[in-house]
Amino acid sequence: MPELRYNRLNNTWTIISKERAKRPHDYPIGWSKERGDINKCPFEPGKEHLTPSEVYAIREPGTPPNTPGWKVRVIPNKFPAVKPEEDFFRNSEDIYDRMGGFGYHEVIIDTPDHYKQLQDFSVGEIFLMLLAYRERMKQLYKDKNIYYVQIFKNHGKEAGKSLYHSHSQLIALPRIPKRIDTQINQTRKYYIEKERCLLCDEIKYERKHVERIIEENNRFLIYAPYASAFPFEMRILPTFHSHDFSSVTDEDLEDLAKTLQLAVRKLAQIFDNPPFNLILHTAPPLRNIPGKPDYFYDIDKFFHWYIEILPRIAIHAGFELGTEYFINPTPPEEAARYLREKN
Amino acid sequence: MPELRYNRLNNTWTIISKERAKRPHDYPIGWSKERGDINKCPFEPGKEHLTPSEVYAIREPGTPPNTPGWKVRVIPNKFPAVKPEEDFFRNSEDIYDRMGGFGYHEVIIDTPDHYKQLQDFSVGEIFLMLLAYRERMKQLYKDKNIYYVQIFKNHGKEAGKSLYHSHSQLIALPRIPKRIDTQINQTRKYYIEKERCLLCDEIKYERKHVERIIEENNRFLIYAPYASAFPFEMRILPTFHSHDFSSVTDEDLEDLAKTLQLAVRKLAQIFDNPPFNLILHTAPPLRNIPGKPDYFYDIDKFFHWYIEILPRIAIHAGFELGTEYFINPTPPEEAARYLREKN
Repeated sequence: MPELRYNRLNNTWTIISKERAKRPHDYPIGWSKERGDINKCPFEPGKEHLTPSEVYAIREPGTPPNTPGWKVRVIPNKFPAVKPEEDFFRNSEDIYDRMGGFGYHEVIIDTPDHYKQLQDFSVGEIFLMLLAYRERMKQLYKDKNIYYVQIFKNHGKEAGKSLYHSHSQLIALPRIPKRIDTQINQTRKYYIEKERCLLCDEIKYERKHVERIIEENNRFLIYAPYASAFPFEMRILPTFHSHDFSSVTDEDLEDLAKTLQLAVRKLAQIFDNPPFNLILHTAPPLRNIPGKPDYFYDIDKFFHWYIEILPRIAIHAGFELGTEYFINPTPPEEAARYLREKN
Repeated sequence: MPELRYNRLNNTWTIISKERAKRPHDYPIGWSKERGDINKCPFEPGKEHLTPSEVYAIREPGTPPNTPGWKVRVIPNKFPAVKPEEDFFRNSEDIYDRMGGFGYHEVIIDTPDHYKQLQDFSVGEIFLMLLAYRERMKQLYKDKNIYYVQIFKNHGKEAGKSLYHSHSQLIALPRIPKRIDTQINQTRKYYIEKERCLLCDEIKYERKHVERIIEENNRFLIYAPYASAFPFEMRILPTFHSHDFSSVTDEDLEDLAKTLQLAVRKLAQIFDNPPFNLILHTAPPLRNIPGKPDYFYDIDKFFHWYIEILPRIAIHAGFELGTEYFINPTPPEEAARYLREKN
């Protein structure tokens, strides 16, 4: 029988189809296998001149910027959604409101190898990718006009990736995006009522009941959220309370890298390398929010950072777009069972 | 230069890329051309026994239910997301909240012709489809446990359509979905402040400025919304104030059918029949909302029903899913210019 489940973190509901649970082979697979033309790829070592100048890189000692020798290379997006040189105006166009397109849009080329996709990365390579995430986040938060840095990775064409060569992206904005604002408000409400962190409570409950646990690896956990909006959705997070990804230690990043590698490899095995979006959610830095002086009060106590992996094996169609409710044909308990088995 | 635009109706922001506006040929096209196997299609006349029994049909006089002779045929979905026989419980599972999967999930087979897609429909055929929408909505609102009927049409595989034979769907829920709730709250706020309808104001402004107008047809208008979240997004709505689709007259449905035909044909011409979602937004019937006795007060004055067409020619990826902000690579003014030219 179908059941509606509340996603408290995002304040939305998911219809979980329990009766006719779709198993992995019920999903049509046939993702794009295009691997891009390496000769035309601007992300190859040796072709650094084809991209904007790097703003950060992890490279072999002694190699100069914008030359080969890098492991991870961060560059401004050549076709940015927002730009640092834009004026951050706020004004109106008669009845409509608008803001200037100020911000940063960067590409994190997370491997020099054209053909290596995330599930092929070693733990060390994933560690360097996460390190670049953290360092760019720290750096961009020094700009007092940046309120949020959204880091994400589109994996596969059907998940919105336009260049085959593996890369992540970040978009830094002068405003807290809607979904983060919702999560802050939802976790704050929970904290005010219970004086506890929502995700710490979820972790405790999930560990006790185990059916949605996928893997635990030292200080990190992978589980399938109760009201998953996407089939085979995974949440990866520290089992200790931590609100701010930019403050995680190198040691924790190493554990996180191991956990993330497991998650991605499990998914790749079940669906033959399906498209997915990897999204990092973390508390924003302290800033002035117009009209809300206490917006960040105690945020270190109630926000809990996490990474979500959203497989794009089912399409969000008219119903989801029209209602912002979701239909998930695979209960997370089932998804967890399949994912747990793989390693 | 990029610009952020506020979508007041949905309370979200869209980053509009004005500088490097993507023109139609900048989008990768190559939609699925699969037309399904007519011999295996359960929606063909003569195969009525393969589907659940019809709950409504527009058919030739004298033809009995569940036999050929229909123009539009409405059936319960064989694999429903929600079901009328489910108990509508509200309870919890320890820390989580859930509700029973009560509701209606129906398929509106809007043509007997396997190969006819919406852009091939005559005005009369679209009229019958819209008539079925209205009649099912009216009928389902007689069930006092139904709070909202979401009607939508997934056009093309990439827009989530699983069976080729043209059809629409409706999902009737015992709760007002999140997006409708947002729209009610947003239009109510506007009304309280200005004592005017938000969409009536938009219509007035857009008509005066014309750059986002695509077509006006008697009492209906097509325009590209100021903060369109999807490239080439279209909004179709009555130019007269009307909050409730289920109360539109046959005469208005005829005009609407003409307008909708124009919209769909214009889009099909520009992108060679691209995938899209068609979504109907309308005010819900008056019901008791827990804790909010005045929720519907004056809703007939501030809500304005409309149809949106959301082309799926760009993919909402990690950034959109992570932030609920959108990036639209084609300014609506540009989209309107291309769409206006086609007929």
